[in-house]
Order: sequence, then C-alpha cells, then structure tokens
Amino acid sequence: MSKEIISRAENYSQWYNDIIKKAGLAENSPVRGCMVIKPNGFAVWEKMQAALDKMFKDTGHVNAYFPLFIPKSFFSKEASHVEGFAKECAVVTHYRLKNAEDGSGVVVDETAKLEEELIVRPTSETIIWDTYRNWIQSYRDLPILINQWANVVRWEMRTRLFLRTTEFLWQEGHTAHATRDEAIEETEKMLNVYTEFAEKFMAIPVLRGIKTPNERFAGAEETYCIEALMQDGKALQAGTSHFLGQNFAKAFDVKFTNKEGKSDYVWASSWGVSTRLMGALIMAHSDDKGFVVPPKLAPIQVVIIPIHKTEAELETINLKVKEIKQSLEKKGISVKYDNDESQKPGWKFAEYELKGIPLRIAIGPRDIQNNTLEIARRDTLEKATYQQDDIANKVLNLLENIQANLYQKALDFRENNTFHANTWDEFVDIIENKGGFVYAHWDGTDETEQKIKELTKATIRCIPLDCKEENGLCILTGKPSSRRVVFAKAY
Amino acid sequence: MSKEIISRAENYSQWYNDIIKKAGLAENSPVRGCMVIKPNGFAVWEKMQAALDKMFKDTGHVNAYFPLFIPKSFFSKEASHVEGFAKECAVVTHYRLKNAEDGSGVVVDETAKLEEELIVRPTSETIIWDTYRNWIQSYRDLPILINQWANVVRWEMRTRLFLRTTEFLWQEGHTAHATRDEAIEETEKMLNVYTEFAEKFMAIPVLRGIKTPNERFAGAEETYCIEALMQDGKALQAGTSHFLGQNFAKAFDVKFTNKEGKSDYVWASSWGVSTRLMGALIMAHSDDKGFVVPPKLAPIQVVIIPIHKTEAELETINLKVKEIKQSLEKKGISVKYDNDESQKPGWKFAEYELKGIPLRIAIGPRDIQNNTLEIARRDTLEKATYQQDDIANKVLNLLENIQANLYQKALDFRENNTFHANTWDEFVDIIENKGGFVYAHWDGTDETEQKIKELTKATIRCIPLDCKEENGLCILTGKPSSRRVVFAKAY
Repeated sequence: MSKEIISRAENYSQWYNDIIKKAGLAENSPVRGCMVIKPNGFAVWEKMQAALDKMFKDTGHVNAYFPLFIPKSFFSKEASHVEGFAKECAVVTHYRLKNAEDGSGVVVDETAKLEEELIVRPTSETIIWDTYRNWIQSYRDLPILINQWANVVRWEMRTRLFLRTTEFLWQEGHTAHATRDEAIEETEKMLNVYTEFAEKFMAIPVLRGIKTPNERFAGAEETYCIEALMQDGKALQAGTSHFLGQNFAKAFDVKFTNKEGKSDYVWASSWGVSTRLMGALIMAHSDDKGFVVPPKLAPIQVVIIPIHKTEAELETINLKVKEIKQSLEKKGISVKYDNDESQKPGWKFAEYELKGIPLRIAIGPRDIQNNTLEIARRDTLEKATYQQDDIANKVLNLLENIQANLYQKALDFRENNTFHANTWDEFVDIIENKGGFVYAHWDGTDETEQKIKELTKATIRCIPLDCKEENGLCILTGKPSSRRVVFAKAY
Repeated sequence: MSKEIISRAENYSQWYNDIIKKAGLAENSPVRGCMVIKPNGFAVWEKMQAALDKMFKDTGHVNAYFPLFIPKSFFSKEASHVEGFAKECAVVTHYRLKNAEDGSGVVVDETAKLEEELIVRPTSETIIWDTYRNWIQSYRDLPILINQWANVVRWEMRTRLFLRTTEFLWQEGHTAHATRDEAIEETEKMLNVYTEFAEKFMAIPVLRGIKTPNERFAGAEETYCIEALMQDGKALQAGTSHFLGQNFAKAFDVKFTNKEGKSDYVWASSWGVSTRLMGALIMAHSDDKGFVVPPKLAPIQVVIIPIHKTEAELETINLKVKEIKQSLEKKGISVKYDNDESQKPGWKFAEYELKGIPLRIAIGPRDIQNNTLEIARRDTLEKATYQQDDIANKVLNLLENIQANLYQKALDFRENNTFHANTWDEFVDIIENKGGFVYAHWDGTDETEQKIKELTKATIRCIPLDCKEENGLCILTGKPSSRRVVFAKAY
C-alpha cells in the first residue's frame, strides 16, 4: 500500500526523496542543482506564501521588486558580505549568442561581453540599499518596510530537493529605520511572525534564538533564527531575521536628516524564509505511508471517494456528494470528489494517503441508506463513521483537531529529543547515538565552536532567547560559561 | 497642481515617464534595462496577478515552477525558436568569483567555467518540454495544464519602463494535449481569458486576432493576440496565446500512446502576459493630472481626507470616518484614511489624483452637522455631495460606474481612432497624421508587410478574428485580397 516508499527506519534520506517523488512535489531538473517544483508541491508553497504575505501586510509591509542581476562591484562594498555571498554564484558575462560557424548550434558571441559582469542575486541587500540611497533624505521618508518574493541563486556543491538547491524561491524583507532601537524591534517582530507562521500554519514548534558570530549572516550585527527539529533528530534552520546595523547604509552611503536636523546613516533589517520550508514541512510530519500536510497548508483538505458496484449506486452517491461538497465549501473547506471509475477505491485510498490529504471521506450505498459516511484522518490513520447531519462543522472540527494534533506530536517529539549535556562524553554520546537538541555550556569562542563541529559535526544552532542565566563549564574546554546554547547536527 | 507632469499634448513620451515617476510605480535600476517595480506599482501588478491567477485556476490550470536557467543546447533543438530567442540573452558562463590579487575587489574565477553555458530563460518552452518528456507516456497523462509566474530576461537594446525591459515579470502557460483540436481549443480559450481580463479588469477594449507568419512566436504554428490602442494612437500587444502544434514535442521527443494504442507526438499551447500590461494600463486611462486606475485593479479604492481647523473638529471627524471606513470595508472596498496633519488637504487632493485613487471622500465639520460628505471621482474629476446614509452602497455603485466609464471612454477612443484605408495615399495619411487602427487590404505576402513597415513604420497588428470576408486590393501592391487586416504603429 505504501507504493514503494522506503521506511524512515530503513533509510531516512531515501524516504525523504521517495515522499517528494511519489507525492509529486518536486524533481531534479536537467540544470545541475536546480529543481522543478511540481504542481502538488507548488500548491503547498502557494498556501505558505499567501499566509506569510498576509502576515507581512498586517504588520505594515508592502511588496516591491528589484532586479535579478547585481553588478559585481556592489558585492565588494560591504566587507563581510562579499566573503559570504559573492563567491559561489552564477556570473553573467555575455549578452548574446550567435550561430556556430560549423552549423552545430549556437555559441557565445565573444564580441558581446559585458563591461562589468552581473551576478544573479544570491540575496538583494546590495542592490536594494543602492536603491534606497535615492529614496531616503529625511526621517520623514522612514521607515521603509519592503518585502519581495523572488528567486535567488547560490551555487551549491551538494544539493537536495527543497533543502539546498542552486536556485530557490523565497521572500526577502528589507527595512530601513531612523533609529537603532526601531530596527532591532523590526528584526524581532519578524522573528515573531516567522515563529507564529511555523507553529500555527506549519504545525512545527521552533526554538527562537540568536546565532553565534560565526553563523551570523554576512553583513549583519545580529542574526535571529528559528530552528526546527526533524524526525531524524537533525535541526533545520527555518527562517532568519537580521539586524544589519548601519553596515549597508555605510557601504552604500545612505544618510538621512534626523528629527534633530543632524545627518546620520540609516538603520536596517533583513529577513527571509524560502522553499526550504517545504523540506521542513515534509520531514516534520510525514510518515511511512507518505506526505502529511497540516490542514491550514493543504491545497485540498478533504477528498471524497464513492464506494459502489453499480452505475445506479454511483448516481445516487454523486447526488449526495454534490450536496455534502457544497456544504463543506460554504465553510471555506477545499474539497475534491474523485469519482473517476478507472481506479478502484483501494488504490485511491493509498494514493491520497501518499499525497497527504488531511481527511478522506468514503461513502457507499449503505451510507446513503443510513445517512452516514466514513471519515479517515491522515494524521492518525483512524477511521470512524459519522452521521451526515451538520457534516461541515464536524469536518471543520476534525481539521482543527488534526492541525493541533500535528503540532502536539511534533512538540512531544522535540521534548523527547531535547537533552542537557554536562560533560564532553555525555555530549558526544547524545550527538552520536540519539540526535536532537542538546543544551550545553560553551566558552563563547569561535575556536571551541569550530573544534566541536570538527569532532562531532554538531553546530551551535542558536543561543536561545528564553534561556536563563546559569553558570557552568564549557563541555569542551572547561572554561566558565554563563548560559547554555543549543547544539545539534543540522541540515 | 499636476506636480510637474508634462501634458500628453506637449510630450506624450515624457508624460508617460512622469506618471510612472510621480505616482511611484517604477524606476530604472543601476542594471542596464532592468527596472525596480516600486510598492505603488507592484500593488497594482499584484491585483492583476490575483485576478488572472483565479481565472487560470477556474479554467483548470495549476501553477508550477521551472528553473531560471536553460542549457544553451536546448535552444538549438527547435529550429525557428533558436532564431527568435537564443540571440539577445543573458549568458551565465562561470559559477564563482574570487578576491582580486591586487585587493581591488572580486573577479571572475576563470577556473570555475561551466562546461555548457546557461541561458537565463527568455521563455521556458524548451526546459518545460524537456521535463514533460518524463511526465507523459499515455493519453491518460494528458492534458497537462500548467502555468508559471516567473521573471524572464531578454537583452533589449532600447528599453522603456514596463513596456520593454531586459528583465520582466510574467506568467507563461504551457499545456500538453492528446489532439490538435484540443490544443487549438486551449489556445483560443486562453485568448478569451486574456480578453476578459483586459476588458473587465483593465477596462481596456482589445482587438482579438491572429498574427501574420512574420510576427508569429518563434516555434508556433499560429499566434493569437489581443491588441489595445493607447491614447497616442499607437497599438500595444497586450497578450499572446500560441498554438505550438507538435513542434516542441518533436524537438524534445515527447511522445505518448493514444487511445488507439498508437504512438504520437504531443500537441502544445503556450500563452503569456507580462508587466507590460502595467504600461498599457498607464497609457490607456491616465490623464494630465496623473495615473488613473480602474477600481478593480486599484490597491486603494477610496481615500478619505478630513477637512478641519481645530483638534476637536478632527476628533469628531475621526470618529465618524471610523464608522464609514468599517461600513465600506464590510463590502470589500479598500479604504485609506489620511489624517496626517503634516500635509494640507489641497496637497493631499493633488497627491491622490496623481496616484490614481478612484474615489476621494472629503469630510468636514459642516458635513458632520449635515450628515453629508463630498465625493470626487478620479475619472471625471466631478465632485458631488452625498448623504452619509447607505454610503457603502453608494460608493460601490460609483466604483462600478467608474469601471464602466473607463471602459466606455477607451472604447469610444478606439472607435474614433479606427479607420478604413482603401488607397496607399489614404493609408499613409492616416498613419502619419492620425494614428490609430487602420483596416486595410494586404496581399498576404511577407515582402509587402515588410515594405509597408519600412515605408511607414506601421505593422500588421493582427488579422482580426471577427473580420468578415471582403474582396479588395492590397493598398501597396494592388494585388487581390479577401479580407482586411489591422495596421498600426506599435509599442
């Protein structure tokens, strides 16, 4: 019944690929590292976009669009940004092809060489701050609260569908403020928006924290992040929000006259989430039968399947389903009725389990007689018979219940896989044999962080925002530490 | 009051640029030919996207996403496509930068040269049909009805904001069918969707027709188009829908087993509209006072401005406006209340006229007393006083009225600027001195079409779908013709 999906226990990595393939979410393209997002996957991404976009607008942001290409020289203007972003990237050097002289196809026209190479944006701080320079003169022009939905390219050596691809889709917010405090407030506000989205829509609990200097965004003064735990005990960074200080304003000479009439550099934040969230969604909830999608992000929330032997039975069922479908749709529930006769119900059951439709309704001649129907939940795989009366509210309740249950399951999993390590041996044992989040003391140095990574492959996911002060000794060096940080192996 | 907008009569081209600049719709970026779409412009584009996306989905289409990059060799596979598209394009040749040895910044790492260059997609038929090959085996896999929203790049030599830019945003539908008839039906269906969108949402009447072979999409068997008339008498191609025959299926070897069990190549259509529509929208309706947006595409449909002297008056007005705003929003009307005290009402009036808000409501102390308010229409610039009772329905009616009026005005303009020419002299006189659409006889040859273009700059916009048979003589060669085609100078 599981249609060739390998189990998580047997091969987690293969299971992830199987889900993506069998649920029709994405596939590799002929272009190295670039994926095709297939209709079933894109429909989920669209639901994510719609929810996020509404949250951005509700917090006062507007959308805009900046160029795909960035002049090479822009990257050199912010010293640490160039180190982080201008290296592995797609470089446009020419703007014309011509017919090959031997008739074999087309070749690059060497006479059409750009004076300055263009970089396909890996992130847009540079071109946006170059633009903001002309938009900002006075504190009256601030704040600027802009988001863009865009594709970006980072030339990754090892790629995995959704998790790490050369081209990916994302949103990037870029805001400009008159004061340091306001920019920090914005950075934290957007971290909260991401947290709410992850928890309420994706049904994934996340740790909120700040990155160590070593893991900080190139050009940021502080990087805030949300970190989620996957079913194999590895962490996944699900979103970041950066306080950029005045770094980009200085690099691109963006000054304004403040309320006191003095000239100052503008303060900035940037924040983004990407199609990587699709990877998180798949790995957080899916099981050995296929994809599991939280109802709030499911393009189809309910599938209805008729169980019949004769044409007459089907006709009766069709009529009843039409009625049920309308009553569900009136409540804003998205419904698919699959009465395609070329496939048997059993095949359909497995197929929709695979694709993660939250609820499956089956209805046969006896149900028609008894005014009943059978509902199966994708999350628990439980089936139960319901009276048809008031069915829309029953389905609504079930969908809410599934949404809450998926979150609770993920939260329980995280709690069962969160550990405190006080010694090096304990730490290594957990990282190697259990996985999960490990709270441990760290002496605060880059060297120790790097050394731990070399020895165990675990990285500091974040310094949690809600972590209380606690004196202790660094697990590696024994030097004093005043709070625990969270380690994990990560995607 | 017009805030430095030049008049259409004085300089139409400058007027267009002024509107875009002063209404904050877009601007040129530091990257040659690429634009920044500013929040005010992007908000209109988002309304267009939402309306189109719904129409696509209502006609059975789903969204997906294909890679930005296309291997160079793909373009050589379809003979006429390569001529049309693989020439002026952005070519990625390298995937890494490195620090310059002299410390001057970053330079291309010559060791990171791609084996095969990648082209930034100018359109996606090639990569999509290469992908479809693996998706289609049997007639049961058909039809495939996919759309993608994406950015594309065509290296244009002369660019103009929205109308012709190196990078632009668009949607491209790519469908696959089992039969020729079904593919043609789809091509025509999408032309109808575009027509409905242009007329009902953009309030722009369009001519529906087919392109001459010379103006056909590179790789198509037939290109259908909608053509709109701008206020300067020039035509603008607003959308195209292509019947691709089996050309791309043959080029990418996409075969299927039909119902009869025989192998055949798949039939295709593709269709697209782009941010160019923003240019059409601006030029169709705007006036010497600024941007004019049809209510259905206006991000803000109503702006409310308080007229007051004292703080106490403002407080009373605030309370009343809160009530009015809620009643409008309940009807789905988008409302902005601008009670910013740093600007005078007169300044605001001009500002919102410039930005094209369809309705402006002004409300002062006397209105509070009399239970009235003043409403100004952006389209006619008429002002009238209304009782506040049932205001939401009154505003809804006015918005519908504006939408209809803008369409009617554009239709009247087109009718007044549509001509029939029967002789060469007549034709040249109209093209040179009047502009507009000119119905004239043409002998059906490429040579004549080209010659007319050279002599007058007028091109055949389309062979109208609803054109009746009519015997006549070609205006240039005097050879026989069986129907008139439509000529115009065009954007």
